[in-house]
Amino acid sequence: LLNKSWFSPWALPKALNSILRAIGNVAFSNNPISGAMILAAMFVGNPTVAWACLLAGVIGIVFGKVLKQPEALINDGLVSFNGILVGCISVAVFPSLTGHDIDAKFWAILALFLVISSYVDIGLNAIMSPCRIPALSVPFNITAALMLLSLRGGAGLTGTHLPDPQHDTADLTIDTNTTETMQQEEEDVQWLKVMEGTLLAAGQVYGVGTIDSSILVYLAFLLFSPLLTIFFYMGSVIGTVAGVFLCEAPYTAVYQGLWGYNSLLTSGAMVYFLVPTPSALLAAVVGSVLAVVVQAASSHIFVAMTVPVLSYPFNVASLLLLAISTTTENPALLWTPIKTF
Amino acid sequence: LLNKSWFSPWALPKALNSILRAIGNVAFSNNPISGAMILAAMFVGNPTVAWACLLAGVIGIVFGKVLKQPEALINDGLVSFNGILVGCISVAVFPSLTGHDIDAKFWAILALFLVISSYVDIGLNAIMSPCRIPALSVPFNITAALMLLSLRGGAGLTGTHLPDPQHDTADLTIDTNTTETMQQEEEDVQWLKVMEGTLLAAGQVYGVGTIDSSILVYLAFLLFSPLLTIFFYMGSVIGTVAGVFLCEAPYTAVYQGLWGYNSLLTSGAMVYFLVPTPSALLAAVVGSVLAVVVQAASSHIFVAMTVPVLSYPFNVASLLLLAISTTTENPALLWTPIKTF
Amino acid sequence: LLNKSWFSPWALPKALNSILRAIGNVAFSNNPISGAMILAAMFVGNPTVAWACLLAGVIGIVFGKVLKQPEALINDGLVSFNGILVGCISVAVFPSLTGHDIDAKFWAILALFLVISSYVDIGLNAIMSPCRIPALSVPFNITAALMLLSLRGGAGLTGTHLPDPQHDTADLTIDTNTTETMQQEEEDVQWLKVMEGTLLAAGQVYGVGTIDSSILVYLAFLLFSPLLTIFFYMGSVIGTVAGVFLCEAPYTAVYQGLWGYNSLLTSGAMVYFLVPTPSALLAAVVGSVLAVVVQAASSHIFVAMTVPVLSYPFNVASLLLLAISTTTENPALLWTPIKTF
Repeated sequence: LLNKSWFSPWALPKALNSILRAIGNVAFSNNPISGAMILAAMFVGNPTVAWACLLAGVIGIVFGKVLKQPEALINDGLVSFNGILVGCISVAVFPSLTGHDIDAKFWAILALFLVISSYVDIGLNAIMSPCRIPALSVPFNITAALMLLSLRGGAGLTGTHLPDPQHDTADLTIDTNTTETMQQEEEDVQWLKVMEGTLLAAGQVYGVGTIDSSILVYLAFLLFSPLLTIFFYMGSVIGTVAGVFLCEAPYTAVYQGLWGYNSLLTSGAMVYFLVPTPSALLAAVVGSVLAVVVQAASSHIFVAMTVPVLSYPFNVASLLLLAISTTTENPALLWTPIKTF
Repeated sequence: LLNKSWFSPWALPKALNSILRAIGNVAFSNNPISGAMILAAMFVGNPTVAWACLLAGVIGIVFGKVLKQPEALINDGLVSFNGILVGCISVAVFPSLTGHDIDAKFWAILALFLVISSYVDIGLNAIMSPCRIPALSVPFNITAALMLLSLRGGAGLTGTHLPDPQHDTADLTIDTNTTETMQQEEEDVQWLKVMEGTLLAAGQVYGVGTIDSSILVYLAFLLFSPLLTIFFYMGSVIGTVAGVFLCEAPYTAVYQGLWGYNSLLTSGAMVYFLVPTPSALLAAVVGSVLAVVVQAASSHIFVAMTVPVLSYPFNVASLLLLAISTTTENPALLWTPIKTF
Repeated sequence: LLNKSWFSPWALPKALNSILRAIGNVAFSNNPISGAMILAAMFVGNPTVAWACLLAGVIGIVFGKVLKQPEALINDGLVSFNGILVGCISVAVFPSLTGHDIDAKFWAILALFLVISSYVDIGLNAIMSPCRIPALSVPFNITAALMLLSLRGGAGLTGTHLPDPQHDTADLTIDTNTTETMQQEEEDVQWLKVMEGTLLAAGQVYGVGTIDSSILVYLAFLLFSPLLTIFFYMGSVIGTVAGVFLCEAPYTAVYQGLWGYNSLLTSGAMVYFLVPTPSALLAAVVGSVLAVVVQAASSHIFVAMTVPVLSYPFNVASLLLLAISTTTENPALLWTPIKTF
């Protein structure tokens, strides 16, 4: 499929393969079947997210070609997974923060930011190339924050002002929000709900926070690699449990999986990019803790701008730990030579 | 002129040539005649700005020599254009934000920060050298923000407190400011004034926001390169018109050209640094949009510190896009081998 | 000592040597006797700080080995000095900002963050390696800020809220704080107290702000290198005196040495890393001014998060200036080939 021309009848299956792999690559699962299962999870949880994901995939491929990216990167969806995240999270989360409806104007603005995302993605990877670590989903975080803050400015919202409460679709809202709206929750930690949070974290990666979606996402991970899935779940448990100690009652955000997805991704990144040694396992544990600590610390800053922390904590933690493996002589953490599972 | 000694009668013309080229190089117009026209524009618009510019040029040359910069860089004014921006913008904008008069003490403080600017400039370019992209005017943005925030602290101003309104000289004030002081403006967009804003953007690059200055600046650009000027104006139009959608009425800042100069510079940077292909034109359009979006998003943060966005949006947008051209094999954007127009 | 095995009776003296050198290396004094004197200064000023320092030293060595750092770096304490700073400053400063007692739970949390510090340290140095400048104490600044903000979040403190005033142990509190609590101070500058501040700055590097500790620290510096000590004191004087002009009365923070330690370290870094030429002396003066200006400017931002500026100003100033020496052809500042005094 890699060698077929884009100007042949193969274009449609090529594009579909690329988009599905891109969906999987958000969580290091480079496999079209895993991607298809996750796309199905989006349709189950929030169909609008799924449509935004497909739009992002198409624009990602088009601008991957315009910007002359290598065919292998386009095929694996590596040029479009940041755009896919922009698409998913913007429709899932932004309306409640900006007061926008998801109408034709919103889709046009999203398309514009998906184009910007393509440029930011390639530019940022180029800037980071001397460090020999990939930009992961930093381009998504930058583009999504730019889009959210621009929309808020255009809607006349400054500081922490929220729009009139006509929207209730947000899954991945910032913690203060959810705590405010659900004050009737118990003050005691409900550990069963915490465990539910460790499951929901998988869905939150894609902005769909329902149980059935999250189980589908986990199954997609399992199909790609059981080892990766174990690391994902370990990270999710560490992050979610740590979240209980790092925030105050009510623990709504913890129960929704919002404290788990950054640690989940960080833990997975360690086993995906590194040779799975005991050192890599230790790095996954430390990375999961670091991610959740970064989330706790940076939420002080993000809340002041009414921007969700997105996957910024995952990126900070993963980049710092992965950089260790780039030190020249005999590093404790070894970079995986070829990524095959 | 390049090969004459600094300890000969040639020192004065050498210095003048270097300063005028530095003035031009703020907007990629490396030509002493263009520089002279822009200096004239400053004298027309705000003579204090012109004097600060000359002081900055002299200090830039002296510390370029102290820090052993290559003679070619000194000759082209590349070591001093960041200082020139510090000089121009600090006298044009800071008094209304710090409550300082432009007296002997202010000039002494400015001279100190111009020295600091020389060190920051060379240091930052060294730090960025592994990425093979220049620091553009990031050193100006850092030094100017340091100067403004230090002055505010010394004057006992914290948060968003403004000094007593005894100063009205600011051209490049932050938007909230200007909106507050001109509430009598109409709520409707006056497109003629928007078009005036696309002109004024050129003057705002240097902190002089009058029509006659801006026309002089555009003529200086035109003399250097018509192609560059077309890109500048295209960027200015994109930024200014986008500004209408990204902020709320009254649109005073848009009419003053404050939403245009970052996109103007970004668009120009694309055609200056890149081979002028259709891809570069597309990059200029995307870059202009990105710059104005960064401005809209980051103004939420800058306003909280009472710091103007300066040319930070231009730098973010340009560095991300220019980095694309540093990717090794067959990039979509090609770096211009030698810069001659 | 370098060549002895860690699994022999030599382990204890090896560890002690490494920890004492690490203590000295916080201020570029790589010498176990200097380290021992500074450790004594901690016991004199605040014994809890000394114990935290020793805990950090042990964890630093263990994770230096786990992460396979070169034996020479472990021996010189270069892998643990950032952790030592985390230990010292967290016990000296954090309780008054988070409301925590220094009990078993606090020590466990500290141990966790010391482990994180080891990973952040090596990762950050790897990321910065293309720039050929060391990460200095940036890892300490990141880890300490993460620890403080996480603790505050866990204690339910947001924005600038402070815990109930049951703690009075903080030495290195942020300026607004100290100004609030000591309003009875005179408005006039007391220059004798300013001079006292230039001494106390040496102790503040380690979070112990008493006169006897500071004198012991200066003696430790003197034993290692008189030239370095002169630069340290020059920086301290520049920073402390500049602090008088950069903040408002009462000048409690200036008198406590809190405006001096960043300039002290920056000035010392210039003579430690660079060949001591007149250019390096000038760089030390400019660096001291830059450090104090960065402190004045960034305190606007740090205060809003109730995070002390830590040694962030020192790192910004030193990294920018040291980068100048990495420019290839005939730089004005020469990197010291081998560091021997």
